[in-house]
Amino acid sequence: MFRASVLTLYPEMFPGPLGVSLAGRAMGQAWTLDTHLLRDFAEGRHRAVDDTPAGGGPGMVMKPDVLARAIDHVAPEGDPRPRLYMSPRGRPLTQERVRELAAGPGVVILCGRFEGVDERVIEARALEEVSIGDYVLSGGELAAMVLVDAVVRLLPGVMGHDDSGTEESFEAGLLEYPHYTRPQVFEGRTIPEILVSGDHARVAKWRRSEAERLTRERRPDLWAKYQPRKG
Amino acid sequence: MFRASVLTLYPEMFPGPLGVSLAGRAMGQAWTLDTHLLRDFAEGRHRAVDDTPAGGGPGMVMKPDVLARAIDHVAPEGDPRPRLYMSPRGRPLTQERVRELAAGPGVVILCGRFEGVDERVIEARALEEVSIGDYVLSGGELAAMVLVDAVVRLLPGVMGHDDSGTEESFEAGLLEYPHYTRPQVFEGRTIPEILVSGDHARVAKWRRSEAERLTRERRPDLWAKYQPRKG
Repeated sequence: MFRASVLTLYPEMFPGPLGVSLAGRAMGQAWTLDTHLLRDFAEGRHRAVDDTPAGGGPGMVMKPDVLARAIDHVAPEGDPRPRLYMSPRGRPLTQERVRELAAGPGVVILCGRFEGVDERVIEARALEEVSIGDYVLSGGELAAMVLVDAVVRLLPGVMGHDDSGTEESFEAGLLEYPHYTRPQVFEGRTIPEILVSGDHARVAKWRRSEAERLTRERRPDLWAKYQPRKG
Repeated sequence: MFRASVLTLYPEMFPGPLGVSLAGRAMGQAWTLDTHLLRDFAEGRHRAVDDTPAGGGPGMVMKPDVLARAIDHVAPEGDPRPRLYMSPRGRPLTQERVRELAAGPGVVILCGRFEGVDERVIEARALEEVSIGDYVLSGGELAAMVLVDAVVRLLPGVMGHDDSGTEESFEAGLLEYPHYTRPQVFEGRTIPEILVSGDHARVAKWRRSEAERLTRERRPDLWAKYQPRKG
């Protein structure tokens, strides 16, 4: 069973959206979630998890000793799960990495707050920095949820017949083709003729060509990577 | 006051993580959130929000008429807020777009489920497709939360003195420099000498140089965009 362990200052945020719908229905069946309050690993009367940045500047930095104790407790040596630190400095998350994670035993996720965590704990515990996108959040918790949601839906038995993992964005290196459903005419706009033709080969060809057009127009970066595969 | 309106099949997911911490404390002060159940805009005995895809294939597609009624109810003509549709086919969200949205009156966000929404409602209601990253989620709800969290923390009065929006990733087109805090020695690893030198000019220079190094090493795509600004 896929096990997600989350280290956070806000365990009350979890499972939150992950407890609903697809991921929520599969919880306890295909995956489990455990959350750990970072403050429980702090010492001293004030149980401080953060301190001022060396060299000065705004904000606070999460202490390496506190984080190391939390990581060692949740994922002792020998735990085969990758240890992820959600951070805008990390490697951008891709559907390919999501598939790799879904094929593994689980994840340990450190959620940062404030200015970030002490660099030394990233090195000392070989944390993999993962970014969900080029923007800044108020903490790593939503990023952790995004990663877990993306992974969990790919676990065996999670997606029902109402969903599909085979014809969606990125699975072939392309954005997804446009979708249409009833009514046939909506505010004067009709469903493209070809989709109601009943000719499955033409439909498949149209969808591939639309997916290629959208990718070329909207994401030249993805299109550049796609073309070598195609050739 | 910044107003976020969310159209979803899962209003119970909200405010969820957005009700906690930074965004939660500012709710009602700097921003408001209203959620709308898409099923309330469906018709017929079964109140269907989705139907099978024209042209066949797996999954279900959200009906354009239901979505259009929901959008028109929540954001009638004249509502100045951008109408966003969270979708992996969209324009990748950037910190720059986040700043633009934070400077505006709010957002209307449509959260898709299943295979996606009928293309015609995207056209007819001029929805702006926004992607939070190159991976697939089980629905648009977590993506909407990510966008709202990123925007809300930039609203006036939201970030306290413990946080900072001025020296973080992407604000200068660079990833953020490494952080350090006490203890001075952690598992034999020391804080870089320069950060404890007390020489503010050297600290600033070191941080800039580290931010440049990290960006060059980890994100050649961002580095390529950064260099022209620098020159």
